[in-house]
Parts: sequence; C-alpha cells; structure tokens
Amino acid sequence: MVKKVDVKEIIDSLGMSYKIWGKLDKRVLAPSPINEGREDSLSFCSKEGDEAIEMIRASKSGVIICSDEIELSEQDYQDHTLIQVNNPRLAFIRILEKFFATTPEYGIHPTAVIDPKARVGNNVFIGPHSYIGECEIGEDTIIYGNVHIYSKTKIGKRVILHAGTVIGADGFGFERNETGGLEKFPQIGGVVIEDDVEIGSNVSIDRGTLSNTIIGQGTKIDNLCHISHNVIIGKHCVIIALSMIGGSTKIGNYSHIAPSSALMNKIVIGNNVLVGMGSVVTKNIQDNLVVMGAPAKPVRDNT
Amino acid sequence: MVKKVDVKEIIDSLGMSYKIWGKLDKRVLAPSPINEGREDSLSFCSKEGDEAIEMIRASKSGVIICSDEIELSEQDYQDHTLIQVNNPRLAFIRILEKFFATTPEYGIHPTAVIDPKARVGNNVFIGPHSYIGECEIGEDTIIYGNVHIYSKTKIGKRVILHAGTVIGADGFGFERNETGGLEKFPQIGGVVIEDDVEIGSNVSIDRGTLSNTIIGQGTKIDNLCHISHNVIIGKHCVIIALSMIGGSTKIGNYSHIAPSSALMNKIVIGNNVLVGMGSVVTKNIQDNLVVMGAPAKPVRDNT
Amino acid sequence: MVKKVDVKEIIDSLGMSYKIWGKLDKRVLAPSPINEGREDSLSFCSKEGDEAIEMIRASKSGVIICSDEIELSEQDYQDHTLIQVNNPRLAFIRILEKFFATTPEYGIHPTAVIDPKARVGNNVFIGPHSYIGECEIGEDTIIYGNVHIYSKTKIGKRVILHAGTVIGADGFGFERNETGGLEKFPQIGGVVIEDDVEIGSNVSIDRGTLSNTIIGQGTKIDNLCHISHNVIIGKHCVIIALSMIGGSTKIGNYSHIAPSSALMNKIVIGNNVLVGMGSVVTKNIQDNLVVMGAPAKPVRDNT
Repeated sequence: MVKKVDVKEIIDSLGMSYKIWGKLDKRVLAPSPINEGREDSLSFCSKEGDEAIEMIRASKSGVIICSDEIELSEQDYQDHTLIQVNNPRLAFIRILEKFFATTPEYGIHPTAVIDPKARVGNNVFIGPHSYIGECEIGEDTIIYGNVHIYSKTKIGKRVILHAGTVIGADGFGFERNETGGLEKFPQIGGVVIEDDVEIGSNVSIDRGTLSNTIIGQGTKIDNLCHISHNVIIGKHCVIIALSMIGGSTKIGNYSHIAPSSALMNKIVIGNNVLVGMGSVVTKNIQDNLVVMGAPAKPVRDNT
Repeated sequence: MVKKVDVKEIIDSLGMSYKIWGKLDKRVLAPSPINEGREDSLSFCSKEGDEAIEMIRASKSGVIICSDEIELSEQDYQDHTLIQVNNPRLAFIRILEKFFATTPEYGIHPTAVIDPKARVGNNVFIGPHSYIGECEIGEDTIIYGNVHIYSKTKIGKRVILHAGTVIGADGFGFERNETGGLEKFPQIGGVVIEDDVEIGSNVSIDRGTLSNTIIGQGTKIDNLCHISHNVIIGKHCVIIALSMIGGSTKIGNYSHIAPSSALMNKIVIGNNVLVGMGSVVTKNIQDNLVVMGAPAKPVRDNT
Repeated sequence: MVKKVDVKEIIDSLGMSYKIWGKLDKRVLAPSPINEGREDSLSFCSKEGDEAIEMIRASKSGVIICSDEIELSEQDYQDHTLIQVNNPRLAFIRILEKFFATTPEYGIHPTAVIDPKARVGNNVFIGPHSYIGECEIGEDTIIYGNVHIYSKTKIGKRVILHAGTVIGADGFGFERNETGGLEKFPQIGGVVIEDDVEIGSNVSIDRGTLSNTIIGQGTKIDNLCHISHNVIIGKHCVIIALSMIGGSTKIGNYSHIAPSSALMNKIVIGNNVLVGMGSVVTKNIQDNLVVMGAPAKPVRDNT
C-alpha cells in the first residue's frame, strides 16, 4: 500500500511552471507538515522571505515545494530537493490529489435505502444508512453514510456530501392565525445542488417553499451550516462552519462567509464579498466588500 | 398526478371572509410565486397599496389572493381572478395544505428500529434508519428518517420531526472533582414534546437531569438548534435555526427566538418576547419585549 | 425495577467526608430536584446560608445532601435526614452514578455497520444505524446510534459518543486556483479521541489534513459543536453547545468554552481559560484568563 513517488513524477503533475534545485533522483513515501517531515517526506512551505528560509533549513523533509519568490542559496538545497512555484499550497494539493488521496470505491452500500424512482448516475458512492428520496444524482458523486436526502432534490456531478447531512427538509415557514397558533406554510419546492459542490457533515439545506433552494457550481459548505428555503448561492463560494443563511437570501459568486455568521433573510450579498467570523449581516452587501461585526459593517475593499 | 382546482373549491377552503373579482370559472394546476406564475397558477401577494397593484399587474398568475385593503380597479381583474382577504398568506397556506401539500404515507419503514416497549399511536410515519427507544408517540405524528429518539421521550399528536434530529441524549452536566477532572452528572430525566410541535433537521434536544425537558404545544423549532436539559418552552413559540437555549431556561408562550441566538442557562424569558438575530441573552426578559444585541437589551415593546 | 437505597449505602458511597443529621434508617427510591421531592426522594441543595435553610425547610425530600458550611438547627433535620459535605453536587452525582444511572448494555446492534478492519475493544456498546470505519475503539466505550465514524479514527477507553455525531469527515481545505475555482486540499490525517472523553449529539469533528485532530483525555464536548481539522484540545476541557473551534487552533488543559463561541483558526488558548458565551476569539489567550465579547477581550483572572 506504500506509494513511492519520484521527484520526476511530482514535477510532471504540478500543472504550473516551476524551478527545481537539489537532487532529482529522490523518492517520497508520504506527505507531511514541513516541521514533522523525514527524509522520505514531501512537504510545502506557505511562508515567504526569511521566515521561509528558516522553515526550510529547520525541516527534515526530503522534498519541499516553496514560493518562487524566495531567494535560495546553495546551502538550502544541499539537504532538500526544493521545487519553486507561484502557489506552493496549490501545487502540493495537486500532488496529494494525484498520488496520496483516497476516495471511497464506487458502489451503493447494501444498507442504503434508495427510492425506486431516484435516478442515480454512474460511478456514484452512497454510504451506509443513507437515504435517497425521489431524486436525481449526477455521476461521480460521493454521498457518505447517514445522509438523508428528501425527494425533489437534484444533485450534480462530482458532488461530495459528508455524513449526517440532510438535504430537502421542509423550510421553516409558519403564519400566526387569529388565535396566535402557527399554521404551517407547506413547503413544496426542491433543492438543486450544482456540479462540484462539497458539503460538510451535519449540514441542513432546506427545500424551497414553492421554487428551489440552489447551491451554485463549485461552492463549498462546511459542517453544521444551515441554508434556509429559497436561498440562492452562486458559484465558487465558501460558507464556513455553523453559519446561517436566512430564507430567500441571495449570495453572488466567489463570496466567502466566515464561521458562525448569520445572514438575515431576504437580503442580497454581492460577488467577491467577505463576511467576517461571527458577523450578523442585516442588510444587502455590494460586490467586493469586506464586512464585519454585529450588525456587520464594511471595513474595507476585498480587491 | 396533476391536480386541477376550481376557483370555487378555493373560496370554499379559505376559512375566512373574502371578496372575489374577475372570472369565476378558472382552474389552477399549481401554486407559484407571484412573479413566476402562469395562466394556470395560483399565487398570493403579500404587499399592500401601490406596490401590490404593481405586482398584480406584472404577474401572469391566473388566480391571485391579495389583501382586502388594496383598492382594485377593473383593469386589475381583467387578466386575473383576484381574491381579497384579510391575511393573504394564511389563506394561501390553507389552499396549499388542502390541495397541493404532500405528506408521507403512514407506516414504519422496515429499516427503522423500534424498541419493543415503545408505544406508537395510529397513523404514525417513521422513516428509514430512524431509532425509537422506549418512548410514547402520539397519533398522526411524522418522524422522518435518520432520527434518533432515546428512551424516556414522550411525543404528542401531529408532531413532525425532521431527519437527523436527536431527542433525549444526555444533558451536559459535569462537576469538577478534587483533581480537576470532570465527573458526569447522570442524566436520568426525559423529554416531553407536546401536540402539534414541529422540529427541523439536525436538532438536538437533551433529556432532563432529574425531571423533563418540555417543548410546549404548537411550538416550532428550526434546524440545528440546541435545547439543553431541563429547558421548558411554552406554547406556540418559534425558535429559529442555530439557536441555543441554555439549561433550565424557561420560555413563555408565543415568544420568538431569531436565528443564531444564545440564551444563558437558568433564565426566564416571558410571553410574546422577540429575541433578535444573533443575540446573546444573559438575563431574564419580561413579557412583550423586543431584545437585541450581545448582551441583549430591550429595544422596544412587542405589542 | 424500583431500587431502594438505604441511607447507610448512601454514606458509604460518597467518597468524601460527611456529617449526618436525623434518622439513619431511611430508604430512598429515586433522586429528585429538592423542590419536587417526596418522603422517599434523595435530593441535594446547591445553595449556602439562609437560602439553603429556606430550601431545605420547604422541601419534602426525605434525604438531602447539603453544604457543610450551613448552620443547621434541630428543626431542620426533624423532617429530613441531612448529609453535610464539602461539595453536595459532586456527592449527589456519585450516588446517582452508583445507584440510579443506567447505561446501555454492552453489545453491537445488528444494524450497526463495522468495517472488518476496525478493532473494537471489550465491553463496547454500538447503537443502531451507526457506522464504524477502519478505526480503533477502546474498551468500555459507548457509541450511541446514528453515529458515523470515518476511517483513521482512534477512540480511547470509557468514551461516550452521542447520536448523530460524525467523526473524521474531511476538514474544510480549499485553495483558489488561477480561474477562481476551488481545488480541494485532500484531507488524509485522522482523529484521536483520548480516554474518558464525552461528545454530545450532532457534533462534527474533522480529520486532520496531514496529521491528527486530537481531543485530550477527559474533555467533554456538547451538542452541535464543530471541531475543525488539526485542532488540538487538551485534557479536562469543556466545550459547550454550538461552539466552533477553527482549524489548527490549540486549547490547553482545564479550559472552558461557553456556548455559541467561535474561535479563530491557528490561535492558541492557554490552560484554565474561560471563554464567555457567544464570544468571537480572534487572538491567542494566555493561561488563567476570562475573556468575553466580539472580539473577545480579557475581563478578569480565572483563578
């Protein structure tokens, strides 16, 4: 099971331009944090300048991917093979993805319950104790165990849903009647999760009231987030743990919601917005702003 | 599966007084948001005055329920059949509930595990992969899948529990001993969920320490809320997503806790209180107050 | 099933020094809150001074454990048997634990799915619909139902995991590439949960990126908390409901994180720190401080 990866294989898989220093005939067995490495480890350095030099010199990792802005001296690459690129973290990710990451083998666990009317694409994994209602699931999607997907959900390709997540439960809509009691607004919409979305564990995404709740292509949602009915999230957004997106709120593309934030219902968040940790957002936010606090206020441009 | 509903059936099901304008011989096939409707759609308009007129004129929905305070002119009901009532949203809810909402068919899914000592009422639905301990469950209750109910829980009639919710796990009670270690306070109480309660997905409601945690009749709890041991919530309250109710705290009737709020343990929240989004409530709150902020302070009356 | 416990058995099980007043030949059938007791109830009084005297006199509980600093008069122990100790709550906990608490019988529920490579210790309980990946689980551990444990998790002895909890899902790591898209940082580390940890329901603890996420011995985590990748929590800490611990953050020993708090990633929280409810912690916190607010600031010593 141990993989040996040659330096040559590494540089062939970077997908970006590089410079390389030191011995080329090395092999690595495992990725490692730069400060925990060994001679057969591959690491990356996320720092720049003197701080980077210091980390590299202190590291025992055999092969290190680092920034192409660092000025290296011969001493640095005597003990390590150094690969310089524009974005070391991204380069490291690609090597991990290619040589060291594991994903579940395709297949549907025998304890999973799939509605006979569900349409499940090729090469899909569905884990133990998951339930799939009358849904559509695109190819190459991974649904871990103990996930519950109500009917009227449409899931794209290459989506990942982690354990304990619930998609398509009723949105929270009630109206007080003459006696003060709460009458339920029937929730008859669905959920659309576009391609390349990843959703963490124990997340709740509610179905739309009459139309759909939509999670745009490439967006990533962390654990324990709540996405209310009729929310529309754009493409390539990041919604971090324990955040709450109120009903019918719209978020543009490339926006970033830091952990434990709460976004009021029926507001519009622009593109490339950054909402700071623990913020309470009560108003529309224009494109390219960083907002923070409770209530959240703009603190600077995000450009 | 397509339903055709006559205007006459609609007005017979409103349960409130109305005025009607335009053609009476229409049929609708589906409910729709007012701005997405078609000739065979039923919609409602939640606005008043000129704003309402503008929405109605722009809408393609064949039948629209709107406020009885709007002054309509003949032009408005040439293209639409208009039904005027005091609360259009509530009227629309009742039509949805009667003609368009679906609920799971009664029955216990074969993968659900029910303790042999549990007492389950008639017409109950229990979804896949749910577990019911030694509990009592009233008639007409819907328990979706992947729900986990510990023993000593008593659930009323017409209750709805969404997927991933956990009822009756141990409350969080520990005492530091002489060495600084934490000794567990055994949690031997139960949970009582009264009639007509609805609880969202991935909610956690803990058992009482010695007595019961109680959720009062008609109260609605949204996704990902935490209800600690010995909490007592009154009737017809609303607790919205990601809110936290601390141990032994009491909430009166008709109160509204907005999303992402945190209520300290051992406090008393009155009747008809409104706690604003993201508030941190550290003290008792009297009846009929709106409170906000961290720490939460009264901002106005809620009457 | 009803237990009768003699006063003599009670005092033998306190594990601390005591004084006793009143009749010694009593029996109790059940523990009870002091204000809900009956002649055959055992209760404790957590108050001091006049307040304690008042509670004791008003109580109908036959046997009451109270503080050894209360000055009792003969009148007080005519109706009750009174046991005075230094820490009445801790004494009461020990009696509950010994005579009244119930834990699930050992065994693995037939619907639980255990990876054939998992190593499960003796006297372990695993509840219905739980999934255990390629993990190691120590003896006397209780894993309730609907729990999902990914591979590469190591769980110690006497650990308790409540229903709906997910251990070892991928940490949330993504890097924006040249086109603004998000590439996943493969998460290949694991989770280590040391002995005597208890974790509430619907908690999410992510695997480390390259190394492990670690929950230290004796630490207790409440419902709906999020513990990010690479977090290291020390021994005997308390993390209360709906709290969020950001990636790579370290927490020392004996620290207390109150509910609905958010701790930034990559910070260091010392030993014996108290973080107040709803705080947003953005910086390192030294030992023995109480911090509060958003952003959290020191308000006093915790000694």
